[in-house]
This record gives sequence, structure tokens and C-alpha cells, in this order.
Amino acid sequence: MQFARLGPAGSEIPVAIDTDGEVFDLRSITSDVNGAFLASDPVGRVDHARSAGDLPSIDRDRAGGMRRGAPIARPGKVVCIGLNYRDHAAETGADIPTEPIVFMKDPMTVIGPDDEVLIPRNSTKTDWEIELAIVIGRTARYCESDAAAEASIAGYAIANDVSEREFQLERGGQWDKGKSCETFNPLGPWLVTPGSLDAAGLDPAALALRLTVNGEVRQDGTTADMIFRPVEIVRYLSQFMVLYPGDVISTGTPAGVALAGHAPYLQPGDVVELTADGLGSQRQTVGAA
Amino acid sequence: MQFARLGPAGSEIPVAIDTDGEVFDLRSITSDVNGAFLASDPVGRVDHARSAGDLPSIDRDRAGGMRRGAPIARPGKVVCIGLNYRDHAAETGADIPTEPIVFMKDPMTVIGPDDEVLIPRNSTKTDWEIELAIVIGRTARYCESDAAAEASIAGYAIANDVSEREFQLERGGQWDKGKSCETFNPLGPWLVTPGSLDAAGLDPAALALRLTVNGEVRQDGTTADMIFRPVEIVRYLSQFMVLYPGDVISTGTPAGVALAGHAPYLQPGDVVELTADGLGSQRQTVGAA
Repeated sequence: MQFARLGPAGSEIPVAIDTDGEVFDLRSITSDVNGAFLASDPVGRVDHARSAGDLPSIDRDRAGGMRRGAPIARPGKVVCIGLNYRDHAAETGADIPTEPIVFMKDPMTVIGPDDEVLIPRNSTKTDWEIELAIVIGRTARYCESDAAAEASIAGYAIANDVSEREFQLERGGQWDKGKSCETFNPLGPWLVTPGSLDAAGLDPAALALRLTVNGEVRQDGTTADMIFRPVEIVRYLSQFMVLYPGDVISTGTPAGVALAGHAPYLQPGDVVELTADGLGSQRQTVGAA
Repeated sequence: MQFARLGPAGSEIPVAIDTDGEVFDLRSITSDVNGAFLASDPVGRVDHARSAGDLPSIDRDRAGGMRRGAPIARPGKVVCIGLNYRDHAAETGADIPTEPIVFMKDPMTVIGPDDEVLIPRNSTKTDWEIELAIVIGRTARYCESDAAAEASIAGYAIANDVSEREFQLERGGQWDKGKSCETFNPLGPWLVTPGSLDAAGLDPAALALRLTVNGEVRQDGTTADMIFRPVEIVRYLSQFMVLYPGDVISTGTPAGVALAGHAPYLQPGDVVELTADGLGSQRQTVGAA
């Protein structure tokens, strides 16, 4: 099952999409796809309400014409893992990390998968990063096993961890300064449950990720090349912070970013497209703040 | 005027406290002290409701017996400025920053000013940092003047930016890893409006800050020693991210942290007390996670 949010920014309708692509309006069972919903057996509740005939479906054409929001309401936090692919660490001249590098993005940077990305004022180095995002469904605090970490995962989505490299690397200190600009976190279109990925024969630790700019392939990787796997990341992070339902973790990006020097940084008018096995696709046009 | 939140964690009552110390229950005009309330002329609304006789007061003894929560509901983000006092930069062996160093804390680390602080599991270097916190009341985006930045400030509070130094500095990469442990952000007791500080003859850029551990003075500084002043910080940050009502900015700490080597790190049973001119005081006992 996939969860999504359709409609104008700020008034999205929570929906579930079944394996046949049928779209169900969830407003009879939840006000939004948020932490509280994800923590309360969302798949079971949807199945139950559907069996009882309580979930109106939305006409496919109508649903297809609606704006796609981020698949979850504003997260409590967005935690990111840096340099989690060997090829990306190498292209940026960094050492392979011996444990996960952790930084954060402002949760208010999360936008829909097809919303406009704004180049910040005074930016010359706005860059892309396709990533596998984990959405938390159950509180994770000092997880003692991979199984406990895995049980806290509500699902997966595509994230674009948009980054301003001068702000991040050349303006003193910590990376967060280049990671939290307005619109810097397109997310979605879907939150895909682990069960749904598994039923499709897909493994979150072996998904193809591909990003193009104006049709040219810039990133073409697979989560199989991660240094730290998704479940390992959740387990690790839970030793340092509490992960709550609705929190998002972006798990790092494969090689092919502009920072590596083989492609220009983003300009207004560019079109960025991202796809991942089983997680759908994003398409952003680039504007100016 | 001061805003505060009184009562058990998760069900605090929003209150205002006038210059005579009278406490008013704000539930007839807002569900909480949150971004939406702070953005809607909170002082004017309280004055109006009080004149109309719509604000019941809470008996002082009763109010004094209630737990003090953080003075605002969960912030959208907590942004922190690093090494913003010359003496603190010097004691940690760091260069004086040429522009603000920016990092983030998980907003869920915010707790009441007297709540227990938990030493994380496997921590040996849990440290204190008294800071002046700014609370945003009006959206700040590319502020072009100090006046615009100043107008976005709803008020000030004391923050303890609790930090685990091994996690922050010795575990690979970015500081955030040692800044977001559970309970690591006591905030309050009051959100003091700029007008109220001014009426008391106080300047946010010249407030004495003092922190003791088990009665021994560890930090004894003043915000006058900041490298970047509060208004300057808001203006600066607004060039890199949008600051929304309810967001919190912690502005750095003066000298005297355990990291400098002159005092031991925190242990369970320790008592940490913080005071700042015009902003009240905090008192935390230290426990173990």
C-alpha cells in the first residue's frame, strides 16, 4: 500500500493507493498522513475501513489531475546521512566515513515532489541529491537490534536533498547552513510501506535511483552501494536521538552531483527528474527565490 | 508581558504574566503558546481580552505549584549559533568565526526549564551551555535591515543547549549528532517580549547569564560579549532559511563549559541552575537515559 497527499499546498487530502492503482480518500479515518496516523497501524485501519465500505475512492482521472503533495504532513525533524555512498565520498574528495555522518534540514523545507525548487538569493552552487528517505512509524529509542529498528519504519519515499554548496562548505562551519534553504526538500510522491515494497519483490537496500537534469542523466546509482544500510542507520541514529513517528531520514546520495565538477550547478528554468524502483518519480522546475 | 505554559508535560495551559506577577489563563483566546498565536499580535490580544474581563487569573500560589513547561509549544525548528562568544571560542581552541556557525537541534529535545536532563547511554561527556534563545513571531525571509529582523522577534528565553562532546566532536563529521539527544534543550521559564525587556531597562544584547553546577559557578557571562548580536543573527539566518513563527534560535554560549577542561562533565544527581537578567531561572536535576 502507498500513502500520498493530493491537493493544493496546505490543504492536501490524505489518500491510500492500492496495488491496482485505485485511490482512496482517507478523510473518514484520519485528518492527515502524519505521525499519529502512521503510529496507529495505518495499513490495518485502511484495510478495515475499506472492507466496511467506509473509504470513498477518487476517480483516477481526477486524482491524476491533482497536485501531489509530500506524502506526509510536516515532519518533526529531517535527519540526513552524509557521504553514505563510496562513489559520492570519492567524487567529493572525502574519506569513507567509519560511522554515519549526521546533519539536519529544516522540516519546513519539505515540499511536494513536483513543486518548484527555488535557487536562493546569492547562490551560485545549488545542487541536487537523489536519496532514499525513510519515514518513521513507531518511536525508535536505543534500538538494540536490527529487527527493532526495522519495526519502526513506516515506509520509504524519494527525497531530493537540495544543497547549496557554497553555503554548506565555504561559509564557516557546519553543513546545515546550505541544506535548509526554502523548498530544498522535495519528498514523495508516495510513502511506500515495507510490505508493499516486499510484495513487489523490491528490497530498500537494493533500489535503483536515477536523477536527470534537462533530460541528461546525472545520477544513476543503487541503494545497494550504501555504506550504511537503511535499517542500520535507524538503529545507529536511535542511540543519539529519539526518532518519532513522522520523522524523516534521508540516507545519502550516490555519485553524480554538480559538486563533483562534471556538470553545471542548477539554473532557473532547469528541470530535475528523479525516479527510484517502486517509489515513483518526481519532476521539479527550478526557479529563483 | 511574559508568556509561559504551566501544567503537566503535554497538557500545559498557556498563560500570560503581567508586570505585577499576576497570571492569566489564556485558553479563552488560544489553545497554546505556538507560532499561530505569536504571529497574531499576542500582546494586543491579551490586553484586549483582559480589558474585556475575558481572562481568568490563576491564583498565585496555585500557579507557583504547577510544573513549568517550555514557554512555547514544540517549535518548527531549533537553530543554534556556535562559538558566538570570544571567550568560549578561545577556551575550546577554535578560531573566532568570521560569520555565524549554524547547526540544528531536534525540536523534540525541548523540555521545561525544571525538567530532568538525561545523560545519554554510553555518554561520558555531557556538557551544559547557557544561551539566550530568540523566539520568532513573524516570518523572516531575506530580511534587508536590522529593523525587519527585529520586528520578527516575539521574545527571548533562557535555553540550556545541552551537548554531548564525544558525540559532537569525536564521532565523525557534524555537530548535530551530539546536540539532539533526548531532553537536551531545557527552555524557559518565560517568553519575555522585547517590549517587556525594554520596559525593565534591559537590552537583549547586554544580559548577564549565569550557570552553576551543584552551586558552583561555571558560566558567568553577558550577551554583550557576543560576536554576532541577536538581531544580526536573525537577519543573517534569514538569508539562508525561512524563519517561521514559533521557531527558536539559540545564540551561543559564553566561556565556562566542561569541554574547556576546568570542571567535570555532568553526572547523574548533579543539579544545574541557570539565570539570566529579566528571563527568570531554570533548575535541572541530571538523570540517566
